[in-house]
Amino acid sequence: MRIVVTNCNTTQEMTEEIVRGARAAAGPGTTVTGLTPAWGPESVEGWLDSYLSAAAVIDTLRTYDGAYDAVVMAGFGEHGREGVRELVDVPVVDITEAAAHLACLLGRRYGVVTTLERSRGQIEDSLHAAGVAQNCAVVVGTGLGVLDLGDTQRTEEAFVAAAVQARDAGAEVLVLGCAGMTGLQRLVGDKLGLPVVDGVAAAVKLAESLVNLGLTTSRAGSYAKPLPKRRTWRPGAKPGPGAGPGPGSPGPGV
Amino acid sequence: MRIVVTNCNTTQEMTEEIVRGARAAAGPGTTVTGLTPAWGPESVEGWLDSYLSAAAVIDTLRTYDGAYDAVVMAGFGEHGREGVRELVDVPVVDITEAAAHLACLLGRRYGVVTTLERSRGQIEDSLHAAGVAQNCAVVVGTGLGVLDLGDTQRTEEAFVAAAVQARDAGAEVLVLGCAGMTGLQRLVGDKLGLPVVDGVAAAVKLAESLVNLGLTTSRAGSYAKPLPKRRTWRPGAKPGPGAGPGPGSPGPGV
Amino acid sequence: MRIVVTNCNTTQEMTEEIVRGARAAAGPGTTVTGLTPAWGPESVEGWLDSYLSAAAVIDTLRTYDGAYDAVVMAGFGEHGREGVRELVDVPVVDITEAAAHLACLLGRRYGVVTTLERSRGQIEDSLHAAGVAQNCAVVVGTGLGVLDLGDTQRTEEAFVAAAVQARDAGAEVLVLGCAGMTGLQRLVGDKLGLPVVDGVAAAVKLAESLVNLGLTTSRAGSYAKPLPKRRTWRPGAKPGPGAGPGPGSPGPGV
Amino acid sequence: MRIVVTNCNTTQEMTEEIVRGARAAAGPGTTVTGLTPAWGPESVEGWLDSYLSAAAVIDTLRTYDGAYDAVVMAGFGEHGREGVRELVDVPVVDITEAAAHLACLLGRRYGVVTTLERSRGQIEDSLHAAGVAQNCAVVVGTGLGVLDLGDTQRTEEAFVAAAVQARDAGAEVLVLGCAGMTGLQRLVGDKLGLPVVDGVAAAVKLAESLVNLGLTTSRAGSYAKPLPKRRTWRPGAKPGPGAGPGPGSPGPGV
Amino acid sequence: MRIVVTNCNTTQEMTEEIVRGARAAAGPGTTVTGLTPAWGPESVEGWLDSYLSAAAVIDTLRTYDGAYDAVVMAGFGEHGREGVRELVDVPVVDITEAAAHLACLLGRRYGVVTTLERSRGQIEDSLHAAGVAQNCAVVVGTGLGVLDLGDTQRTEEAFVAAAVQARDAGAEVLVLGCAGMTGLQRLVGDKLGLPVVDGVAAAVKLAESLVNLGLTTSRAGSYAKPLPKRRTWRPGAKPGPGAGPGPGSPGPGV
Amino acid sequence: MRIVVTNCNTTQEMTEEIVRGARAAAGPGTTVTGLTPAWGPESVEGWLDSYLSAAAVIDTLRTYDGAYDAVVMAGFGEHGREGVRELVDVPVVDITEAAAHLACLLGRRYGVVTTLERSRGQIEDSLHAAGVAQNCAVVVGTGLGVLDLGDTQRTEEAFVAAAVQARDAGAEVLVLGCAGMTGLQRLVGDKLGLPVVDGVAAAVKLAESLVNLGLTTSRAGSYAKPLPKRRTWRPGAKPGPGAGPGPGSPGPGV
Repeated sequence: MRIVVTNCNTTQEMTEEIVRGARAAAGPGTTVTGLTPAWGPESVEGWLDSYLSAAAVIDTLRTYDGAYDAVVMAGFGEHGREGVRELVDVPVVDITEAAAHLACLLGRRYGVVTTLERSRGQIEDSLHAAGVAQNCAVVVGTGLGVLDLGDTQRTEEAFVAAAVQARDAGAEVLVLGCAGMTGLQRLVGDKLGLPVVDGVAAAVKLAESLVNLGLTTSRAGSYAKPLPKRRTWRPGAKPGPGAGPGPGSPGPGV
Repeated sequence: MRIVVTNCNTTQEMTEEIVRGARAAAGPGTTVTGLTPAWGPESVEGWLDSYLSAAAVIDTLRTYDGAYDAVVMAGFGEHGREGVRELVDVPVVDITEAAAHLACLLGRRYGVVTTLERSRGQIEDSLHAAGVAQNCAVVVGTGLGVLDLGDTQRTEEAFVAAAVQARDAGAEVLVLGCAGMTGLQRLVGDKLGLPVVDGVAAAVKLAESLVNLGLTTSRAGSYAKPLPKRRTWRPGAKPGPGAGPGPGSPGPGV
Repeated sequence: MRIVVTNCNTTQEMTEEIVRGARAAAGPGTTVTGLTPAWGPESVEGWLDSYLSAAAVIDTLRTYDGAYDAVVMAGFGEHGREGVRELVDVPVVDITEAAAHLACLLGRRYGVVTTLERSRGQIEDSLHAAGVAQNCAVVVGTGLGVLDLGDTQRTEEAFVAAAVQARDAGAEVLVLGCAGMTGLQRLVGDKLGLPVVDGVAAAVKLAESLVNLGLTTSRAGSYAKPLPKRRTWRPGAKPGPGAGPGPGSPGPGV
Repeated sequence: MRIVVTNCNTTQEMTEEIVRGARAAAGPGTTVTGLTPAWGPESVEGWLDSYLSAAAVIDTLRTYDGAYDAVVMAGFGEHGREGVRELVDVPVVDITEAAAHLACLLGRRYGVVTTLERSRGQIEDSLHAAGVAQNCAVVVGTGLGVLDLGDTQRTEEAFVAAAVQARDAGAEVLVLGCAGMTGLQRLVGDKLGLPVVDGVAAAVKLAESLVNLGLTTSRAGSYAKPLPKRRTWRPGAKPGPGAGPGPGSPGPGV
Repeated sequence: MRIVVTNCNTTQEMTEEIVRGARAAAGPGTTVTGLTPAWGPESVEGWLDSYLSAAAVIDTLRTYDGAYDAVVMAGFGEHGREGVRELVDVPVVDITEAAAHLACLLGRRYGVVTTLERSRGQIEDSLHAAGVAQNCAVVVGTGLGVLDLGDTQRTEEAFVAAAVQARDAGAEVLVLGCAGMTGLQRLVGDKLGLPVVDGVAAAVKLAESLVNLGLTTSRAGSYAKPLPKRRTWRPGAKPGPGAGPGPGSPGPGV
Repeated sequence: MRIVVTNCNTTQEMTEEIVRGARAAAGPGTTVTGLTPAWGPESVEGWLDSYLSAAAVIDTLRTYDGAYDAVVMAGFGEHGREGVRELVDVPVVDITEAAAHLACLLGRRYGVVTTLERSRGQIEDSLHAAGVAQNCAVVVGTGLGVLDLGDTQRTEEAFVAAAVQARDAGAEVLVLGCAGMTGLQRLVGDKLGLPVVDGVAAAVKLAESLVNLGLTTSRAGSYAKPLPKRRTWRPGAKPGPGAGPGPGSPGPGV
């Protein structure tokens, strides 16, 4: 099985870290390919970044020629999910919803620990649209920016502090609300004695599950194929079909 | 990986059918063992049956000596899930929630097609407690009893008719709301052009996912271990520890 | 009028205390009979206990030969209510919902004070299913186990502390969230100046009200009679009809 | 026990019919006194009427010198309830909420059948504020005005037709959404085989229950006593205390 | 354009202050007329006052002979809105909903700061009925009565403290929850750096918007004209038509 | 006052029609400038188009040098709103939310009539995020594509048919769910006798209202300024500040 993982930002190192996490979670027969958008923000923090990212990620998949069996979208709380579902014929799993789905199986209420406070609204909206917001007790920010996550000591402390807040608000399970936090999972789980779900790993397992069961996005209603029409993906450019040989590639005309 | 699948009723043939479905969905390294309660109702239709079933299923697992890595509970809309989460140390996935979780990934709204109308309330409550009710457009009954499902022709017609109702109510994805409906999945999917999720298959994949990621039920808060106390599981009996060697077996004292 | 009160656990002393509370609330022409399950847990704390209790309570009523006009179920937050509604032809009132119904008439928001924190989820779910969760401001645990309630001093302090928490969360009325707390009602009411509703008393009055108005459970839809089928209530046993002479007794075949 | 029942309109015949219904429901030791406002609308249909009625009913109680132990407010979906709770020291039960509370005990979903379609919004809002809207499947209008209810034949047909609509929308229990419909209860129940709850009867039983349990409105928060201040209840009038000897009478200064 | 602003109480000074605020917000071609009810409470604090106020305000408009193009109702959280919509043919905007509508455009969550804690319930209900409660993070009371607002120093301190509470609860925008707080807007905005919406000003702009767009209340369903019938607006009086020459005046028969 | 109206697609004719509608609604001192994105889809139908549109609209405003006092976003149900709120310092009003806000003032429930059925989900999500979904009775599609709207006869019939559906579902007010439907407002209003709100006109009035009251987007929490960072808005391009002289122009660094 071939899974394509899309980073939501243009930072290649982050794509690599995400791919490492995805590979660690993937089953024996699964290959993971990371895609970094050629344009967009270097990190996604807030709505402006998120909408820019959504278009760039869709464009990245639209023009990707490789073949794949599923898409994992690695932007926690970021937009684009439904657009990619329209675009490709294979299952699409976003790490936000994926983490929440698994968390619901592990406790009665879960909490999300993310980077900046300002992302809270986007995450809440994303969980709501995905239909899994009900059992989310709280979304807590650590005050760290995405690109600050390199400072391990500070990151760990901030994350543990936020996790304690989430637990006190009723969370029995924690979700790591950022693709770049993958490594923190074990640390926090050990300190607090709570299961911690990493979105990238969760999304890989859910994508594998859907592919193995022969299930893919419904074309009835919301996620019908994009209508053929003129779309200019950047100033001065012409619409290009981007048709690839693989089952996941979008058809021409988008 | 060893998955134990519990039937919710005492009908051995149904356990066998469920096990066949579970095995078809399971990954290469997964073994599936079906457990049929030694007591309880021969089919579960309504709350009285469901509560009787819940106690019998818990008792079945409590006294089961085999080792296992995950539990799949195969009773659509039936009670017991949270009690089993308290009892065992391994992940527990119920087919009701499992089907809903995967359905949410495939369309904006899903619908459930089940046997009797009277089960609607239980299914709605079960989806609500699991945190995945929001995107459920409708639960439709076929008017068939669980044990009528043998009459293939009638079952198929009733199921397709109910599926059409669900689609018209906004469902973009269908869920088979009964463990015994597994074979109908392909038929209905073909006729309506909608993805159809089978709960047993979905639960097997989710259980495998949790085990592979090293995740299990949170012990903080809701699903703490049962407190040690006197419990009589049947008139005249004494509490028995039921301790088994496997990781999934409950400890003594329940 | 003859009211049967079912204790949810096997502890005879608790049945007696509940019956005392019920009798204190009952009108002049009402007789109260307490039923203690012959099997099940000695106290109910958590979901496993609650499902075991639900089956045992249903079995208790199924095999009870006395005549009665209404059932009061005395397990706060415990399961079984809907199954008993299917079983018997007379009104069934559970103390959880009963307390909430009366509390709604006394203030804009009510709060529940219960024993262990782990019961919170069950109580919330029970209030939700009963349709009276909306105005519940909070469910607070005292940290006491059901069987600790004998230690009066500690119980009182813990209960008052939890009641203060509930008030601070917006509760204008308190509900005693445990059948064994009946005696605390006056104490807490006096200390906090809030009305305190005891579920057993509330359920007795509601049961009397329904009987006096000639109302009983609807058989349309959810709470239809249990279907005739093979049910084994315990290993090795055969299904036996519990048909009794009274109006409340279930018919044969369950 | 002395219950005062307030009609929401100035039509004396309707007060008498309500009092007959209340007396039929009341227990042996209960006396029922009907109060007809001296001002206000002759029937209440819509918000303008309802607000006028609310003030008139409050004024009626404010200036009533009799003693009483509880107030039943007989205007289905009409305003005023919370204001009366502030005014008097005895329990206050409104027929809208009362019917819904009992209906919740009899089935999983209830429906309300009322007079004019335009009342639907008020009834929905009233049930919501009372905390019992969740399990209301639907509110259906019969198209009849309050004062048309005298035409028995037409009333019965319209009511049965609306009741069928409610049942088809999922109602397992019906509520009579108008104080003047009391007599229809048996007819509709017989035709449809559903329990039918009459608000006046329900409110009387709930009021008796609260009085018997020694419970009354919480003064903490929402329903604190009205603050002493200048209030003119009609042009040219001066505020009068209206203090009466009974426990239900409001104190001076309102 | 002619806007009539109705004060909810009988205090003329407050009407004048409200009119000053309304005029400051009004566009160049707009005239503002303040109406003070001839009866009712001198300030509105709690439900009893609010229902009395609702009837008095409706009566004031019913008997007002002037012509007008829109009504602004200046009682924060007070009743009457829907009744006035039935009565007049011109747009009606209540300051509670108006402030919330504009606040929703300025941030993801807003908070309301009001006078007494006891008003919280009414404000929450009013926002809910208006359809704008969802993004309200919190309603906070200052502990000040309406008529205490003259003490500027104390008012300012109490208001800023409550505003801080609202911000900490997630409010990104503040709403002044009392018609008499208009002057505080700038102060609090400056101290906290949050936008502060004043309901009177917001309502004037929304009323102007509706008039300019030629929009007025729908007569279909909820806000149909009051039915012609006998209504006595005060003891001993006879119903009199309040027909005036202007477009806003109610027709005869109410 | 200078209002910039952004079309969500690249079709210049549609921008012009929108600008005509905006000018018709604008007050005497207001100038309206239409902006057509230089890239993006020629019409927006579905999520893929919507996310592409969101990025293109943000880019359009980011690089626009003119001065302006408010932004109106003319894409019904389309994304981008929150990103533009981060970007500019002036008020931002989206036509989806604007229509809903005014509709809430005109009736108890409103309905949206839009082009394709597939847009329903986006519109529902957009109303939810804006906090005004509660009173939306239904969103109905006409089956027409955005670019089909030129065929007047067919458009009118489809729109009236959909409006009837919305009314039957409880809508007392209608919202035109597409920027290109502006001309239909009078026709449908006349045929059905319901107020019809056009989003463009509503947004212009709300934008004027906010500017006149000196209110703008809160910077606390959700809509803080975009963080300075590397953003590539198209392949091969470098980030450009786009700083303009006007108050609405975004600062450098985005």
